[in-house]
Order: sequence, then C-alpha cells, then structure tokens
Amino acid sequence: MKERHKNALRELEDIAEDIYDQLIEGNIPNMRIPTRTKNNIEFDDHQGVWKYGKSKSTRSAKKLKGARMILRTLYMLEFIRDMIGEDKSSTLREMYYISESWEKGKFNRQSESNRLAEDMEIVTDCLREDFKLRPEEDGARVIGDITVEEKNRKGEIRNINCRDDVGDSGYTIPYNVEEDKIKFTDTNVDFLIAIETGGMFDRLVENGFDEQANCLLVHLKGQPARSTRRMIKRLNEEEGIPVVVFTDGDPWSFRIFSSVAYGAIKSAHLSEYLATPGAEYIGITASDIMNYDLPTDKLTKTDRKALRQELEDPRFDTQFWRDEIETMLEIDKKAEQQALAKYGLDYVTDVYLPEKLEEAGLM
Amino acid sequence: MKERHKNALRELEDIAEDIYDQLIEGNIPNMRIPTRTKNNIEFDDHQGVWKYGKSKSTRSAKKLKGARMILRTLYMLEFIRDMIGEDKSSTLREMYYISESWEKGKFNRQSESNRLAEDMEIVTDCLREDFKLRPEEDGARVIGDITVEEKNRKGEIRNINCRDDVGDSGYTIPYNVEEDKIKFTDTNVDFLIAIETGGMFDRLVENGFDEQANCLLVHLKGQPARSTRRMIKRLNEEEGIPVVVFTDGDPWSFRIFSSVAYGAIKSAHLSEYLATPGAEYIGITASDIMNYDLPTDKLTKTDRKALRQELEDPRFDTQFWRDEIETMLEIDKKAEQQALAKYGLDYVTDVYLPEKLEEAGLM
Repeated sequence: MKERHKNALRELEDIAEDIYDQLIEGNIPNMRIPTRTKNNIEFDDHQGVWKYGKSKSTRSAKKLKGARMILRTLYMLEFIRDMIGEDKSSTLREMYYISESWEKGKFNRQSESNRLAEDMEIVTDCLREDFKLRPEEDGARVIGDITVEEKNRKGEIRNINCRDDVGDSGYTIPYNVEEDKIKFTDTNVDFLIAIETGGMFDRLVENGFDEQANCLLVHLKGQPARSTRRMIKRLNEEEGIPVVVFTDGDPWSFRIFSSVAYGAIKSAHLSEYLATPGAEYIGITASDIMNYDLPTDKLTKTDRKALRQELEDPRFDTQFWRDEIETMLEIDKKAEQQALAKYGLDYVTDVYLPEKLEEAGLM
Repeated sequence: MKERHKNALRELEDIAEDIYDQLIEGNIPNMRIPTRTKNNIEFDDHQGVWKYGKSKSTRSAKKLKGARMILRTLYMLEFIRDMIGEDKSSTLREMYYISESWEKGKFNRQSESNRLAEDMEIVTDCLREDFKLRPEEDGARVIGDITVEEKNRKGEIRNINCRDDVGDSGYTIPYNVEEDKIKFTDTNVDFLIAIETGGMFDRLVENGFDEQANCLLVHLKGQPARSTRRMIKRLNEEEGIPVVVFTDGDPWSFRIFSSVAYGAIKSAHLSEYLATPGAEYIGITASDIMNYDLPTDKLTKTDRKALRQELEDPRFDTQFWRDEIETMLEIDKKAEQQALAKYGLDYVTDVYLPEKLEEAGLM
C-alpha cells in the first residue's frame, strides 16, 4: 500500500473513531466541517491562492438530515477503505451507484456524493485521489521533450518520452499524477504552454512549435481537470519549468487562466496542490483584438456580467487585468485564439507567440 | 504527396475547370450537387448503410446566393490546394477564420464553411481528411494488444503497442487514420469493445478486461468522431476483428450504436468508409434493466419521442430492437452502463460482460 493511501486511511479511521467514541460516551454524534460558503473563502496573499477560512459548521445526528450524512460518511469511509485494500479505484459516478446498496445511506443525486467526497478531502487534508476516487474523464494531452516514468496498472514501469515515444496525439495525462504514479526522469524544455483549445494545440503540434521554441505543449481542454493542473504545478515546482497560458480572449478564458494560476473557488481547499501562481497569461487580450485586428464576436450579456465580476475578483486585481477587462467591456468584443488564422496557419507560430513570449522574457 | 491527396487535388481541379469552361463558353456557371434533404437519403439494404439517393440540385451564379457559393467554392479549392502542397492541415474552425481574407467569399458562420466542405466531399467522392481538413478534436483512446505503426508529423515511423508502449490512458487515435498515416502491424485480440463512457472505459482498463477477454478496448466518447469510427471499421474489415458496442441504455445510446454499425444521416455520403455493419450491441437494454434490476431514471418526453422515432427508423427494424424499444417505452425507464456498479466495481467484468459476450458467441 502506498504511503499516501495509508495516510488517507488513518485520517478516515480517525473520523470513524471520533464518531464511535461519541456514541460510546452516550452522546449524539456530530462532525465539524469547514463552512463552504463564499464568505469563508479567503485569498491568501502570501501564497497567492484561494483558501478556506476558519469558520466551521457542525453536522449533528440530532436531526434526520445530519444523521443521514453521518451514516453516508461511514459507508463512504468503508467503501474507500475497501478500495485501498484491494488496490481499486472508482469514478465518482460509480460511487454514487455503489451507494444503491447503502440502504438509508443511499444518495439521491450524484452532486450529493461528490460533495461529501469533497468534505472528506477538507476534513482529512487529503486529495480525492488519495481516496482512489476519480472524475469521469480527463485525458488532456501533452507533447514535447520530457520523459515521464509511469507505473502502469500492472505495476510495471514505462518510460515514455512525450515527443519521441508517442503518436501525433501525444501523451495522455492519467487521472492520478502523483509521484507514486508518475515521475519526471528527463525534462529538456525551456517552458510550458498550456493551451485552451484542441484546435490550437494541434496547430502548434503540426507547426512543430514544441521544437521551434523548445517547449512543452499541454492541452487544457477548456477548464482543466485536476490532474492537468496538478501536472503543470509539479512540472513548474519540481522541474522549475516556467508556465504560460494561451487561451481565447473572453471572460471564461480569463477564468481558465486564473484557475491554473490561483486555484478555483470550488476547490479552494486544494489550491496549494493545484495552483501555479507564477503562471503568465499570453492568451488573447482586448489589446490583441485591436493590435492584431482579429475577427471578433460581440460580448453577450453574460460575458459582460462575468467581466464585471472579474473586476471585483482579487485574482484579477492588477493593473494589467483591470486595463484589459475594462478595454474589453469598452470595445464590447471577444475573440478566439484560432481567429489568428485570419493571417494564415503559420501566423500564430511565426508572429503572435514569438512576440508574446518575448514580452514574457521566454524567447 | 500522398496518392489520396493527389487524387483529391485532381477532383478539385476538375470542379474549377468545369466552372472555368462554362465561363469561357459565355455561360453563367453552375454546379450540380446531390440534394441533401432527408428525402434523398436511402437505406442501402445490400450494404446495410445509409446513402444519398440520385436527386441533385443546381447551384447557379444567376442568383447572388449561388454566385457567392461558387466564389467560396473556388476560394476553398485554392486553400485546400495550398495546404496539400505545403503538407499542412487545418481545423474546420481555422478554415472559417481563414475565409476572413476571402472578401466577398467570407463565411458568416462556421456551419456554412463546414457544410461547403461536406458538399466538396460528396461531389468529389473524397474524404474531408483527403482535403487536410479536420474537426476540432477527437482524441478517443484505445487499450489492448495491437501494434500500430504511425507515421508522425516529421515523417518518422513509430511502432506503438497499444497495451505495452503506452500509459494507463492508452493510445490516442489521431484525426487521420488512413493507411498512409496508420498501419496495423500486429493484432492479437479476439474482438473489440467500443465503450460509450470514459468512466466505463477506465473501469474495464483497471479491471484488466483487455487481458482477461483478450480484446481491444475503444473509448467512443459519446457520439464517436469520424476517426474513431474509421479506425473501428478498418480493424473490422482489414484485420477481421469482430466489433461489439457497449453503451448506456437510452435512445441516444442506441443511436451511438447505430452510427457505428450503419452510419449517420448527417454523413450518409461516408457510410461505406465509416460504418461497421457487423457490429453487435451489448449495451444496456430494457430487458437488462429488469433482469439485472438496475438503478434507473424515468424517461423524459424527449427520450420517449426519440424512441418512437427509432421505431420508424429502418436501422432499428429488427425483432430485437422493436422488442427492446417497446419494452423501454413500457417500463418508462433508462439506465446508464455505470449503474452496474450497484453490485460492486467488478460486476461488469465478472458477470455482465461475460454473459453478454457469451450470447454474442465471443466468450
């Protein structure tokens, strides 16, 4: 059994023990869990990421709802213990269906079981991956000259160079990218570009930009999965590889960048594991729309609302972001990264990225 | 230049020549294109796939709309010619943006440029891939003991065993899976399971079902991309590998199966390339819902409408499908493939699939 699963098990057993002790002492059991409302999320200026504050709430078996949650918690602990024991893992969806056999502990909706799994993360300070739980699918791809040592499902070691040992679709990031699963044995890149869309990722691959600029290309697939963010973080922290993020130019893409760089509100308890505060934005900006005269779409009402929210968001509280967000609201336009194709298929690698990367001091 | 690109080029030049000749002769140019309405799609009983009928319509430059379409056609031919010459490819989205520089030929929506690319396929009898056009992303994954010889973007040959040379995420299918890109050098599997959801694909991978049943696992990712369907077809036709399809039990999943087996109405002109008429359904049925007592959801109004449409669809005109569709309407329930987790994480590989595959004569 791996150390982090052992540790997760200990933490989970502590929860069970605590409830057991309360029962033995003749008390109605309860659990204390950090309050997960927006008011209890704070921006940690020091680490530059979102975190939960100190407020906690109590889940007591005094009420039916609280009793049911504690029952579910215990069933879930047992399920996780069994998985760790048998070296199995399960999707969050499977766990939801597994609960069909938990009688009164059965979940009514998957959102309930997902949320309880997140609660367990917060209480134990472990990762969902330590519990052997995983989302439906990630599958983001990378291409570039780094060598990954992956321990596969049979426990065998595979050394895979993400440029030379893979097809043109690259290496697919598995759901677990912790050190017991993946090691970086050789990294020969100067920096890493995280790219929002598959079309642009494939463009940079076809144009050979990984070799031209000696960088690693990582496909974010829209809002990136945990495993993608964790992989980027590890490459940045352990291997010292600078990270830039190349997205469309609209409020949702700005959020993609900020979830890579600063963490997301939804996973504030994991920011330290997932966020790469040094990441720089080289995606399409309002200035780019004007400077490169890009094909655009008009902002929708929802876009404008999202931009105004971002002006209130501490993650965007810099001169650069305030200017770009205000300009975007002013010109009332957004643009996609593939809009650069207006000037031909090579423009992005011949002109746009070299200019942006030079600004960032990377080329 | 590869043979099929050369051929595509010839076909496209024929179109240009035809228009040129009409102009030289002093005529207002026009093009004849198969009518793409539902009425002109026929089910070919012999081949067991959908195809276009004989009806054609004329696109004439007499009207502004027709003239604009012919102008766009010529711009597109030129763009494709240039790509083939430079050994480049482009996403459909990029081509849409490229048209920004086509002045009066500029498209207003990507649906217009996509549709014209499809028209070109129909007129020339070529594949979009022959024109070096590709969709945003496919990226379906396969795991199992077959060896693929892929010629990568630099023209180098890579031999990749889809079980031993990849990580747990498997081999990702590239957008072009024609013979000049991919060859099957070694296939040691008895059959192939195409799986609808990522969660179930990963379940079968974790449970080692590819080794247990000596089969290839292919992730469909919902409605499968062309490249996925083409890869399945090639494995079936060239390597004689039987194909089974494992999906959720609802009307949309039945359509996923039928698009693998018989082709889709939208791509009727490509059925011969993409469809695998011998494919068998081993997904969740209404009978399974009852026999295995699976967790279910109630059918929505749209579900019921879709099922009733399927009863009118020649692809579902068999005793098996009529019974299952009518039973589903009767019990008014649907179920997901992951619902099998009700009986534990191994149930699908210990019980369900062996039973289904035995029925299909594959295990």
